Parts: sequence; C-alpha cells; structure tokens
Amino acid sequence: MIETPYLLFLGDVPDQLAAKTAQGVVHWRPEACAGQLRLPGCKADLGLPELSIDAGAKAGVRTFLVGVANAGGVLPPHWVANIVEAIEAGMDVASGLHVRLGDVPEIADAARRKGARLHDVRHPTRTFATGKGTKRAGKRILAVGTDCSCGKMYTTLALEREMRERGMQADFRATGQTGILITGEGVSIDAVVADFISGAVEWLCPANDPDHWDLVEGQGSLFHPSFAGVSLGLLHGAQPDLLVLCHEPTRTHMRGLPHQKLPGLKECLERNLEAARLTNPDVQALGVSINTAALNEAAARDYMAEVEQQLGLPTVDAFRTGVARLVDALS
Amino acid sequence: MIETPYLLFLGDVPDQLAAKTAQGVVHWRPEACAGQLRLPGCKADLGLPELSIDAGAKAGVRTFLVGVANAGGVLPPHWVANIVEAIEAGMDVASGLHVRLGDVPEIADAARRKGARLHDVRHPTRTFATGKGTKRAGKRILAVGTDCSCGKMYTTLALEREMRERGMQADFRATGQTGILITGEGVSIDAVVADFISGAVEWLCPANDPDHWDLVEGQGSLFHPSFAGVSLGLLHGAQPDLLVLCHEPTRTHMRGLPHQKLPGLKECLERNLEAARLTNPDVQALGVSINTAALNEAAARDYMAEVEQQLGLPTVDAFRTGVARLVDALS
Repeated sequence: MIETPYLLFLGDVPDQLAAKTAQGVVHWRPEACAGQLRLPGCKADLGLPELSIDAGAKAGVRTFLVGVANAGGVLPPHWVANIVEAIEAGMDVASGLHVRLGDVPEIADAARRKGARLHDVRHPTRTFATGKGTKRAGKRILAVGTDCSCGKMYTTLALEREMRERGMQADFRATGQTGILITGEGVSIDAVVADFISGAVEWLCPANDPDHWDLVEGQGSLFHPSFAGVSLGLLHGAQPDLLVLCHEPTRTHMRGLPHQKLPGLKECLERNLEAARLTNPDVQALGVSINTAALNEAAARDYMAEVEQQLGLPTVDAFRTGVARLVDALS
Repeated sequence: MIETPYLLFLGDVPDQLAAKTAQGVVHWRPEACAGQLRLPGCKADLGLPELSIDAGAKAGVRTFLVGVANAGGVLPPHWVANIVEAIEAGMDVASGLHVRLGDVPEIADAARRKGARLHDVRHPTRTFATGKGTKRAGKRILAVGTDCSCGKMYTTLALEREMRERGMQADFRATGQTGILITGEGVSIDAVVADFISGAVEWLCPANDPDHWDLVEGQGSLFHPSFAGVSLGLLHGAQPDLLVLCHEPTRTHMRGLPHQKLPGLKECLERNLEAARLTNPDVQALGVSINTAALNEAAARDYMAEVEQQLGLPTVDAFRTGVARLVDALS
C-alpha cells in the first residue's frame, strides 16, 4: 500500500502527454495530491499548487510520486538529486518508470539510510501461485477492450465511484501502473512471469462477500498480437460475472501495429465471453463503454446509439455520459 | 547454445519419474549422452554407462546436466559438491531446476574461477521485444493441446526427425526446459515476463527460407485456467501455418485441477484455429496426435480411427505409429 498524500514530481518533461499517469492520479484522487514539483523547462502542468520538497514534507507529504513517462522509461540522471532529497526529507518514493528506483545506487543508499520504501509499481514485489480457476464468492466486473488504451481503467474507476455513491460494496482492482498509483495498490499484470498471470489476478480479486463487487481493470485485448496472452490470463483469473466492452471508435489500427486491423465490437465481445466461460460459465455482457473524446457531441451520441442498437446493450461514455446506466443494469 | 556431450547427473532421486527430463534427452539425443552419474540410493536409471566426473572429463564431456526434478524444484545441498566437482573438472553445468545455479555461492564461485557457463534453462537469459504479429517468411507448425503434458514436445520432435529424414529443412523450436536440454537452445516461455510472450516466440522462430519448417513446441492449453495466457501468446507469436492437436484420451480432468473438465477435441481445435487467425489468417489443421500410452493396441487403434472419423484429419500417435502420415499430408 502506497501512503498518501503525494507530491507529484513532473521533472522537466516536454509535454502534457508525458504526465498522463500523474494526471490520472490527480483526476481520480485529487484529495491525495498535495502539490506538484516541476523543474525548469517542464512543459506539463497538473494545475496543482507548486510545492517544494521541504514545504511538502512540512505539509505531511508521505510519498514522492514520479508520475511521468519519458522516452525509454529511463530515469534522467538529473532527477536523481530530487528523489534523494525527497527521501532525505522523510518521504517514500513511487515510480511508474521501467527502471527500478533501487537500481540507482544513490537512491538505494538514501532509502536504506532513511528507511524509506521504494515503490516500483511496474514491478511485482511478491510471487504468486499459478491460477486455479476455482469458483470464488463475490461478484466481479471486468473491462475488456478492442485494443489497448481505449478506456478500460477509466471505465472501471467510474464504476467504482458510481457504485460506492449508491452505497454498494465496490473495489477497483488495479492491473497497471497508473491504476496502482491511483488506488495505492494492485499488480502490474504485464510484468508478472507468464506462468502466473491468472494466479496473480486471482490473488488481486480474491473471494469476498456475496454482494461485494470487484471492478477489475483489463489490459490489452484478445485481438492484440503483442498482448493477447496477458488479456486472456487476466480474463481467466478475474473470473468475471459481467464484462464491459471498451472501444475507441476513431482508431484505424491496433495500437503500435499499423498492419493490424481492429476487431468488430460484436466479434470482440463474443470472443471474450466465450473465453471467460472457462472459469465462469455464467458470465454475461453488462454493457459497452465508448471513449468518444475524438468525436463531437452529436457524433458521439449517434455512435453510441448505433452501438446500443447493434449489440442490444446499454452503451455509455464513462467520461461524457457517466456509467450510471451500466450500474442501473445490475439490478 | 548448450555444448555436448552431456554427463547426466541423477543425484539420488527416489524414482524413475523424477528423471523424466533426463530420459527425454537420452531418447531424443542419445549421441549427446556420454554417461550417467548416480549417487547412492538413486532409484532412476537411464541405461547409460556409469561415468564418474573424472572419467567424463577425460572422455570429453562438455556439460554436466542436472536433468532431474525433485520436490519443490530446489537443489539438495548434498548435490552441490558434485556440481562444483564437475566445474572444477572443466565442465559447464545445465539445470532444469527452478533454483538458479548461480544463486548457490559455491557454484557461482567455482564457475567464476573456472570460466564455466551455468545454463538455467527455466530462466530466460535475454530480454525480448513485444510481439509484432507481422507476417514472416518460412513455414511453421505448432503443436497445441487439450491439456498440459499430452505429447506436444514429443510430437514436434518426431515431426522434426521425420521431415529431416525426408530431406526437408526442419527445426524443432523448444519452449520448455526438457526441449531446451534436448536441442541445446530455446526459450522457457512460461518464465518470460507476460508482456513479452508472443515477442519471445517471434524471436525463437524468426523469418526463414520459404521452404523451411519450424516445428514449434506448444505449452499448456487455451482451456487450462492456469496457463491459457501462455498458450495464446505462444500461438500468436508462432504464427503457425498448420496446427497439430495433441490429446491424452484417459485424462479425467485438466492437469492439476480436479474441478476442471477437458475440452472436446473439435471445440479445442476450432478455438485454436480461430485465435491463430489473428496473426495468420490462412492457418489450417494438419492433424491430430494422440498419446495412447495408457491404452492397449486395439483400444488405441479404435480411438485413433474414431478421432480421424470425427475430425476428418490424419490421426497418429507420435510414439506408437510415428508421424509419417502428418508429414505425408504436407504435400
């Protein structure tokens, strides 16, 4: 569990996109974000108060969060001094970079000296058993997608919020780095050793109260040649009762693969349901969540109406319309 | 590449089953096996000449092969002296155990001193790119299964042998520890980080001559709740032109999971073909390979005839009948 509040470190990244992870944290956990620290030349801005490490420590910041992506996922050498300073000031550090914080000698030394915890959220910190597929108590909703990065995390977080507001027992289960930094825990499932994909997900959303809902963040797509193995193991481990299909309608090819076409929505949903039956024969589709950010209001409404008609399922945009209609469909 | 000849070390394992990996090596690469070394109490026997480390070194042994499984995959402390002695005698060491040889200080020290190579075949020694799914030249056959341990490795090795005997260009591509020890190279695909499953397989069977065949060893099953993610990533990465379906007909449940039924042969084959079309739309079924070891001759013949009738595909037992009819079906 990563302790809050966070001081969000943006370094000197060249654009707002590089701070996407940090932005997700600010959007979903504003109360956990005490401020931002930017180096000269930084072109990203989270709209948070500027906060020095010293002032942050005095304000009770618990974790220095490196929530930026830079080319190659490496840690720029000139950020190391800031991280060490944060540790010296009594903070833990959490990072979504590929490089492990503890592999940088200065950071490892400072952490050892101060007893600080280093959270490399891309790297699982424990081992898992292989998946068993045994039926567990509690209910689970999994977001699946036609592609990577089409709104699965946003949709499951929106479901958690909506369900909690209605007094339901609901927990978002993070399977990627941004989700882990938002919720403070989870497993970066694409970094688990292949043999343990489904086992790690079984661990992440274990047996629970009969009326408890896990909202499991999906990853990748059964139709993505790079990552479908992760998606299938995640699907089997999550043992979902209900699937929400996520889709971004303006994409012309699978993310990162210009030669690879997207699947049709109906085909994608059917294939996911078919595969999910292995560990839950009663799995059903709950609805569809479209990321219509690239469409104007009229085009978005038309597109969602068309999908709703075609699939016969409630169709929302978790951002534009909210997910209330999906939660309505649960009862 | 693991150098041969091997001296096969059996330790003091309590039964023949514990030496299954070593037996596979002896069966498929007898010319690479100089002898066996057994400790007092050993209940396994490979039928090889007994050979001391000293005599093995004089006979030109290049690699000391720890080809036994023991409970938990750990290395019994009293085997360490033998391994160190082999290194001192100038040998490399290859192991299929879970524990890394280099994590045992005495072994690591000896290897450093003597410049010996330690091959932990369960652990990938390199990093991989993510899979791309781009069409590659050359032809590929992948063995898929209704379950784990139902003859996929045996079938692909038999195909390699049969095709080479007919003068065809054919290479077995190992994806598990026994296969790697048999062929001297490969990737233990279930030990790769999840994000890189299909990428590792693309690396393992890269573009090749148009008339070259890769015989790719499958792993697990799309219907195994523990390992289906590995099987799907492997399927996408292999980009097979042809599938051979492997099955063990007396199994009553999925290996290791008493609650999990086996899929039907037809359903299993169709689901594999459907998934394989993502990276090769022209994939087809070549035939079926049944492991009939648990049946008598008459029952085996009857069962194979029944499957052949039901699926309309040449059906063999790679051990009992050989795979000639599968290779015949290629032309």
